[in-house]
Amino acid sequence: MKAINPVEVLDTPSDLEEKGREKVAESLNRLVADAFALYIKTKNYHWHMSGRHFRDYHLLLDEQAEQIFATIDPLAERVRKIGGNTIRSVAHIAQLQRVKDNDEDFVAPKDMLTDLIAENKKMAKNMRDAHQIADEAEDVATASLLEVYIDETERRTWFLFETTRELN
Amino acid sequence: MKAINPVEVLDTPSDLEEKGREKVAESLNRLVADAFALYIKTKNYHWHMSGRHFRDYHLLLDEQAEQIFATIDPLAERVRKIGGNTIRSVAHIAQLQRVKDNDEDFVAPKDMLTDLIAENKKMAKNMRDAHQIADEAEDVATASLLEVYIDETERRTWFLFETTRELN
Amino acid sequence: MKAINPVEVLDTPSDLEEKGREKVAESLNRLVADAFALYIKTKNYHWHMSGRHFRDYHLLLDEQAEQIFATIDPLAERVRKIGGNTIRSVAHIAQLQRVKDNDEDFVAPKDMLTDLIAENKKMAKNMRDAHQIADEAEDVATASLLEVYIDETERRTWFLFETTRELN
Amino acid sequence: MKAINPVEVLDTPSDLEEKGREKVAESLNRLVADAFALYIKTKNYHWHMSGRHFRDYHLLLDEQAEQIFATIDPLAERVRKIGGNTIRSVAHIAQLQRVKDNDEDFVAPKDMLTDLIAENKKMAKNMRDAHQIADEAEDVATASLLEVYIDETERRTWFLFETTRELN
Amino acid sequence: MKAINPVEVLDTPSDLEEKGREKVAESLNRLVADAFALYIKTKNYHWHMSGRHFRDYHLLLDEQAEQIFATIDPLAERVRKIGGNTIRSVAHIAQLQRVKDNDEDFVAPKDMLTDLIAENKKMAKNMRDAHQIADEAEDVATASLLEVYIDETERRTWFLFETTRELN
Amino acid sequence: MKAINPVEVLDTPSDLEEKGREKVAESLNRLVADAFALYIKTKNYHWHMSGRHFRDYHLLLDEQAEQIFATIDPLAERVRKIGGNTIRSVAHIAQLQRVKDNDEDFVAPKDMLTDLIAENKKMAKNMRDAHQIADEAEDVATASLLEVYIDETERRTWFLFETTRELN
Amino acid sequence: MKAINPVEVLDTPSDLEEKGREKVAESLNRLVADAFALYIKTKNYHWHMSGRHFRDYHLLLDEQAEQIFATIDPLAERVRKIGGNTIRSVAHIAQLQRVKDNDEDFVAPKDMLTDLIAENKKMAKNMRDAHQIADEAEDVATASLLEVYIDETERRTWFLFETTRELN
Amino acid sequence: MKAINPVEVLDTPSDLEEKGREKVAESLNRLVADAFALYIKTKNYHWHMSGRHFRDYHLLLDEQAEQIFATIDPLAERVRKIGGNTIRSVAHIAQLQRVKDNDEDFVAPKDMLTDLIAENKKMAKNMRDAHQIADEAEDVATASLLEVYIDETERRTWFLFETTRELN
Amino acid sequence: MKAINPVEVLDTPSDLEEKGREKVAESLNRLVADAFALYIKTKNYHWHMSGRHFRDYHLLLDEQAEQIFATIDPLAERVRKIGGNTIRSVAHIAQLQRVKDNDEDFVAPKDMLTDLIAENKKMAKNMRDAHQIADEAEDVATASLLEVYIDETERRTWFLFETTRELN
Amino acid sequence: MKAINPVEVLDTPSDLEEKGREKVAESLNRLVADAFALYIKTKNYHWHMSGRHFRDYHLLLDEQAEQIFATIDPLAERVRKIGGNTIRSVAHIAQLQRVKDNDEDFVAPKDMLTDLIAENKKMAKNMRDAHQIADEAEDVATASLLEVYIDETERRTWFLFETTRELN
Amino acid sequence: MKAINPVEVLDTPSDLEEKGREKVAESLNRLVADAFALYIKTKNYHWHMSGRHFRDYHLLLDEQAEQIFATIDPLAERVRKIGGNTIRSVAHIAQLQRVKDNDEDFVAPKDMLTDLIAENKKMAKNMRDAHQIADEAEDVATASLLEVYIDETERRTWFLFETTRELN
Amino acid sequence: MKAINPVEVLDTPSDLEEKGREKVAESLNRLVADAFALYIKTKNYHWHMSGRHFRDYHLLLDEQAEQIFATIDPLAERVRKIGGNTIRSVAHIAQLQRVKDNDEDFVAPKDMLTDLIAENKKMAKNMRDAHQIADEAEDVATASLLEVYIDETERRTWFLFETTRELN
Ligand SMILES: [Fe+3]
Ligand SMILES: [Fe+3]
Ligand SMILES: [Fe+3]
Ligand SMILES: [Fe+3]
Ligand SMILES: [Fe+3]
Ligand SMILES: [Fe+3]
Ligand SMILES: [Fe+3]
Ligand SMILES: [Fe+3]
Ligand SMILES: [Fe+3]
Ligand SMILES: [Fe+3]
Ligand SMILES: [Fe+3]
Ligand SMILES: [Fe+3]
Ligand SMILES: [Zn+2]
Ligand SMILES: [Zn+2]
Ligand SMILES: [Zn+2]
Ligand SMILES: [Zn+2]
Ligand SMILES: [Zn+2]
Ligand SMILES: [Zn+2]
Ligand SMILES: [Zn+2]
Ligand SMILES: [Zn+2]
Ligand SMILES: [Zn+2]
Ligand SMILES: [Zn+2]
Ligand SMILES: [Zn+2]
Ligand SMILES: [Zn+2]
Repeated sequence: MKAINPVEVLDTPSDLEEKGREKVAESLNRLVADAFALYIKTKNYHWHMSGRHFRDYHLLLDEQAEQIFATIDPLAERVRKIGGNTIRSVAHIAQLQRVKDNDEDFVAPKDMLTDLIAENKKMAKNMRDAHQIADEAEDVATASLLEVYIDETERRTWFLFETTRELN
Repeated sequence: MKAINPVEVLDTPSDLEEKGREKVAESLNRLVADAFALYIKTKNYHWHMSGRHFRDYHLLLDEQAEQIFATIDPLAERVRKIGGNTIRSVAHIAQLQRVKDNDEDFVAPKDMLTDLIAENKKMAKNMRDAHQIADEAEDVATASLLEVYIDETERRTWFLFETTRELN
Repeated sequence: MKAINPVEVLDTPSDLEEKGREKVAESLNRLVADAFALYIKTKNYHWHMSGRHFRDYHLLLDEQAEQIFATIDPLAERVRKIGGNTIRSVAHIAQLQRVKDNDEDFVAPKDMLTDLIAENKKMAKNMRDAHQIADEAEDVATASLLEVYIDETERRTWFLFETTRELN
Repeated sequence: MKAINPVEVLDTPSDLEEKGREKVAESLNRLVADAFALYIKTKNYHWHMSGRHFRDYHLLLDEQAEQIFATIDPLAERVRKIGGNTIRSVAHIAQLQRVKDNDEDFVAPKDMLTDLIAENKKMAKNMRDAHQIADEAEDVATASLLEVYIDETERRTWFLFETTRELN
Repeated sequence: MKAINPVEVLDTPSDLEEKGREKVAESLNRLVADAFALYIKTKNYHWHMSGRHFRDYHLLLDEQAEQIFATIDPLAERVRKIGGNTIRSVAHIAQLQRVKDNDEDFVAPKDMLTDLIAENKKMAKNMRDAHQIADEAEDVATASLLEVYIDETERRTWFLFETTRELN
Repeated sequence: MKAINPVEVLDTPSDLEEKGREKVAESLNRLVADAFALYIKTKNYHWHMSGRHFRDYHLLLDEQAEQIFATIDPLAERVRKIGGNTIRSVAHIAQLQRVKDNDEDFVAPKDMLTDLIAENKKMAKNMRDAHQIADEAEDVATASLLEVYIDETERRTWFLFETTRELN
Repeated sequence: MKAINPVEVLDTPSDLEEKGREKVAESLNRLVADAFALYIKTKNYHWHMSGRHFRDYHLLLDEQAEQIFATIDPLAERVRKIGGNTIRSVAHIAQLQRVKDNDEDFVAPKDMLTDLIAENKKMAKNMRDAHQIADEAEDVATASLLEVYIDETERRTWFLFETTRELN
Repeated sequence: MKAINPVEVLDTPSDLEEKGREKVAESLNRLVADAFALYIKTKNYHWHMSGRHFRDYHLLLDEQAEQIFATIDPLAERVRKIGGNTIRSVAHIAQLQRVKDNDEDFVAPKDMLTDLIAENKKMAKNMRDAHQIADEAEDVATASLLEVYIDETERRTWFLFETTRELN
Repeated sequence: MKAINPVEVLDTPSDLEEKGREKVAESLNRLVADAFALYIKTKNYHWHMSGRHFRDYHLLLDEQAEQIFATIDPLAERVRKIGGNTIRSVAHIAQLQRVKDNDEDFVAPKDMLTDLIAENKKMAKNMRDAHQIADEAEDVATASLLEVYIDETERRTWFLFETTRELN
Repeated sequence: MKAINPVEVLDTPSDLEEKGREKVAESLNRLVADAFALYIKTKNYHWHMSGRHFRDYHLLLDEQAEQIFATIDPLAERVRKIGGNTIRSVAHIAQLQRVKDNDEDFVAPKDMLTDLIAENKKMAKNMRDAHQIADEAEDVATASLLEVYIDETERRTWFLFETTRELN
Repeated sequence: MKAINPVEVLDTPSDLEEKGREKVAESLNRLVADAFALYIKTKNYHWHMSGRHFRDYHLLLDEQAEQIFATIDPLAERVRKIGGNTIRSVAHIAQLQRVKDNDEDFVAPKDMLTDLIAENKKMAKNMRDAHQIADEAEDVATASLLEVYIDETERRTWFLFETTRELN
Repeated sequence: MKAINPVEVLDTPSDLEEKGREKVAESLNRLVADAFALYIKTKNYHWHMSGRHFRDYHLLLDEQAEQIFATIDPLAERVRKIGGNTIRSVAHIAQLQRVKDNDEDFVAPKDMLTDLIAENKKMAKNMRDAHQIADEAEDVATASLLEVYIDETERRTWFLFETTRELN
């Protein structure tokens, strides 16, 4: 598997520089792996949620998981459109993901929310870095796609953050 | 009410610089206030329209009012996502709005259209300035949102402008 | 602006007494102003909500805001159908509104709910008074419209009230 | 055909007084006849419209005709629910209608609008009278139905009236 | 009113012969009048239906009435497209209709069905004659429209006919 | 269970007199119990229908049952909005219902229809009484709701009544 | 009323043994009665809910009530398809139901949830018993229907159970 | 054509025993042939229905025919999924069908219903036998599919049976 | 069964000549039989398709089969509308069909396509002959229906034909 | 490019005479070219419209352009179904089109309408000629398609014509 | 992480034996892991597909991936309903999955299909084993769910298998 | 026609520099012309496609043509919003288009795909150049629009490219 340099067989016709495309593909593949891992973590908490706010948080995390999941196909196909190779397996995801797995048998509801705040904040940062790389490669279509996903990620962070505050 | 510096209690987790976020929040809040004020002015004319083109202009202004109104929640929530405070009341809107109220008992149809051309042209300019501020703060999600609203605002100006011309 | 006597230019053809129509128009315009002001207050709290019930209350207030907003156009156009003039600007709203603005930088979630209970209860009372005025003017169409909005207002009060109770 | 006393065979089980039901049925049947006649007149003008505002007025009158038409079945079935007989033929309509036919080979657009203003204003008056009769018969369901149709009729009058004014 | 020669002011631009268009317009206007009259007769029976099959026949006649009604606007506008004038009033319909009114206070269910069989059979015949006239005028668009309505009319006859047979 | 005086713990904020609200709540709760009982009776006949009109009557009673069922939640929540307690159990329904149960092993189709005519006629009467009580309590929202349900109830009576007549 | 042996008049043509069908019908009728009773209990709590989670639990119980209600018609008609008689009245339900009524004037939110957990757990058990009876009677269609409802019932138990846990 | 042993070329990869799959395929193919034949018989009666209940029975048989038709593709594809061959022609259907054709020039409505009761009862029996064969072959997917179709078939029998009873 | 002269009991009221209607009915019944047979042949190939284009051709034939099937009810009911009898059984179809059955155990994909080209070409020819017969009988509704089906049949031929060509 | 004789490679299987198909294909290709050209001209005016009726005419021309555009694919595929070749490029369109381009920098609104009246009238004539050719070739499917498009074209002419009249 | 014995904290109220539920949960969790892994493998091939059938296979694999993905939430929540813990992370999936990853840089289209045939055949076998375990635990709801997924899995195998055959 | 300098009559009110707007308008008009030309070329191949993949490629090119067509109105109206003139005629397109026409009587399927790859690659390049011009003119709304269309164009190239590879 060519994880570091997935663009070796790049030959989809394109007017963009190959150098830039390689960098964009690499950063997008890591975002795809992160999206998979964060999707599973969010569903983990959706499934093992408990407590007085069970239904409310169960629904919240389902909505957030769906929103994360919906970014995977467009990001992976964006890699293919500029000639790169993309994600191939569970092991491939495990190798590239920056999201930290949490296999604890019990996680308190509030700890679930706090964990997800950190992951989503980190994801927004990583997307902004990828946006910078796309800009430098003059790949405006990739950049435009990321602008939408950054907004969504910041929305998830906002919702989770407000929910953890101790207020009546 | 903290109108000038709404970002004082900014603490939604974010990787963006606080300085830049403050400026973005301030410029967005003024756009929210303008959107409310222009919505009401457009409905004012929608309700008090008269003359041979009554139905045509009544519908035109309803469509334009709906389009303006639809920008309010996304812009205000964008402020919240980057940690700012946003609009709180009618008085708050009155304080921030740059749209000029028109409380005349009678406004001729053509004067309604001419007035709205000026307001929409001004709004496009203000949005472009806010876009510049977002760019400087590296807040690409805000910038992307404004690009869509600028296009819509220019469309409203075009429709209104062509309608005021004396042609057969 | 003719706030006190908006019916001066009343001339839409009607079989109703002018005197009664004047009074109906005046009471409806105040309800339109209140609806705008309560819409903004409800959105204020929707935007600045926080705490463990964030998503639940954020959604509740969005639904209530939408319901309030949906009354504005029918009420304003009802004024026009009986020949009156209606709301023209943010300043006009500020002049007529009976809803009390709340521009505090911080409002605790429970205080938001308590504030809205009071506003909605007051609004139901004002609508009932307007209904009385419409009845006296034999304007049965206005009365019928208000019957539906009174029920909705009482529903908002009920939801908000039950939510503030300290029970497990 | 029993036009004057259609309730002679009244026997649908009902807790309302027969006397009152007779009067309600009679007034509703005249409204059904009027609705048919105004529908045809409005379509007449929809079909023979001409001039610079052709499409705008053609659509306006189609919407108004549809709205009028939609009242016929509910009003006629309301008569049946309280045990009366209702409209039976073109000749029956001609006998009961208060709308004035206009078979002129040419009617100027503005004259069409002016004619319809008068008809709709008259119809609102007739509906209000029928509402009064229903109230006296304690037939609150009929009254409630008419409240909605009166509002629609006043809306048609408003649209038509504003369209006839000479303004730019 | 120009009932006999409605095409006198024919001037919508057309490549068809004026003579033929006159004849087509005349035959279509009679079909429009018949459609109105048969619609009202079918609703008459829909409203005054009774007996063990009440709901079944009430629904059947409602479907048939709707189908008949849906032919009116296309037929009338077809007249306008070839430059003719069309139906203007209840009295105009009464003058042109070939459908026989039935204002009896009581009509037995089976007699309702038998009456409608005869009317629909006659209508199919009249449409086929109009189709012949359109063919001779080379007005293929009118002919094509009638082909669909003839099929629908024959379907109504079939349904009504089978329903009147005494079988178990 | 407080069946007679369910309003004892009335404290939802309201500008209506407590005395009047108590009476409205009591009359509405009986209507809710009746709606449940009539729903079950109508479904009983829907399930045990038989004979040559099986499908037609099976469908008719399903439509009527659905219409009755749809009144339950709005009526019960109306009680809650004015601060009353509402229906709690099957036994509670049995205690309040005025509909007469029919547990016969066999009911002939015509007897089913005749029984339902009587029940619906009685229900319209009870609703009209409740409307009167709401009027006296100045509870216009409750009154308006009942106006719609009275019309529906009278429609059910009409359909059932016409279906029982011996006609061909 | 034949509650114990409702299958006495069993004569819908069937290839299944009468003995087995009797037992299936009997067990299904008890499930129908339970569904009615649990529906009303769940709505009772939906209507009388209170406290900080009002909207969340109000919605939860509405969804659960709707899901329970949707089983009634299919189960009752299943009885009819195999030739049995089914539920006839409120009293009939009261006689067969195994759900325990709760007519307390006040029930704390948590007690509502705890009560419903017990009822739903019991219902799953009863459905599993009925499934066993259907299997023995070779009535695979009834068994298949119950498999879906058992899953739904276990889902309701899970949601209610997680919501009662004291966690943050 | 291999009608008796259609599984000779069975090679779709499967973990099920070939012997069992052969038997399942053979029994399913006979059900597909029966479905075609019963579909055509039901449409035959739909097309040639007559008498006072024409529309009611015409619709009933159309619904039943559609329900039967909808089983054909899933059953035939189920055969293919386990590696068998399925229906190929009209002659193939004629060879396998157990439904008895009825080509009489005239069939009385009641005789149509009686005939279909017998066919549907027989079909339920045949499906139950096929279910048994699938169970023995451990083909749980086929069994599950048949459970749904058995319920539908018993529903058709119930509707037809109740309709033939002589009751008023 | 009266296959040759199905119109013997023709008595649906019609203004068309009986002689012509007999011929139209006879030609339509053969088209109905052909549609059934071609539907089954097309599904045969849909079910037994194989090879690299499996999904593409499987879908193509499903679409074509659905299109063919959709002609059956309108054609058969067209026969009934002009008073003829139509298809009654599988055997009846077998007797009238001109489509050639193909019960081979294996048909290569390309041979499937080639076979269907021939059948569809033949069907277009047969429809055109039936159109001629309808024209001579002045049955313009039947002719109009066939015009649409001829276009669809030629479309099926075109798609199948292009697919058999050896090109890259 | 074979513009004059596109049918040279005609080999889609067909029972129609090759000679006639050649002529039909040639006339249809010219209609396709005209549809493209008239679509662009109508959009030209849609984009460059101006004056007091801007929105009304802008919408009118958009609807008309869409209607014209929707004829292109069916007409071109009709050519392919009878074995002809169809439009290949912008230049091909330019060569075949009979619509006159108008590249003026400024066209007054009324001149736009007048120009389009002439084009649509001419198009109806050309379609009628093509219909004649299809009739002679016994290509009834092509003829039927054109009948619908001729009606639409005459409708466009009517709307445009009435709009140019100087009336109030 | 408790992968082997996830049911240790089983306490959702249930009438099923704990022993059996443990086994069901364990087998379902492996199916969830497999579904994730097969989803990613199928998308891997969807993204890296190439060759003359690109679009056809790209779409096929997208449909199959969606179908696999749709099983994950129901299966995982089924585990929770019977009181087990379910999947928590990418690493957890990697530990439980029986699907073999394929990270090759290049996989020929046919090899993709062949690989997926093997995986889906294996998955059907594993689901059938889980069905057996559920049956033994008397968990009929789990069994019923698996019956549907087994059918879908066999459908995927069939489609893939037929597509790999070398036929023309 | 002012093709080179279409912005001469630029006077829609705008805060953008006239110089920049001129350049943007010019580059957008060429993109509009290209979109028209590539739409027709793609439809040319859609219509004249042939060979074993006929349906698959026919559909692929239809989807791509629709996607290209959907860019025309937004791009042209974007020109108008900034005050430029846009496309007026077929000749105007021919003058501005950079897409190369292909009027060959026969084009092999693979050559069609190869040709379209080149055209789409070129179009992406041209759009990127226009994006650069918009950026320089500070016309962020135009830039944002193009980002979406560039992504779509690269997707078309990817699909077409993978389809031309010789792989099994
Ligand atoms: Fe962007
Ligand atoms: Fe929001
Ligand atoms: Fe952007
Ligand atoms: Fe009212
Ligand atoms: Fe009705
Ligand atoms: Fe025709
Ligand atoms: Fe009311
Ligand atoms: Fe099952
Ligand atoms: Fe099952
Ligand atoms: Fe039909
Ligand atoms: Fe035709
Ligand atoms: Fe879920
Ligand atoms: Zn994809
Ligand atoms: Zn919001
Ligand atoms: Zn409005
Ligand atoms: Zn009706
Ligand atoms: Zn019209
Ligand atoms: Zn509720
Ligand atoms: Zn039912
Ligand atoms: Zn299939
Ligand atoms: Zn049919
Ligand atoms: Zn096409
Ligand atoms: Zn879930
Ligand atoms: Zn446009």
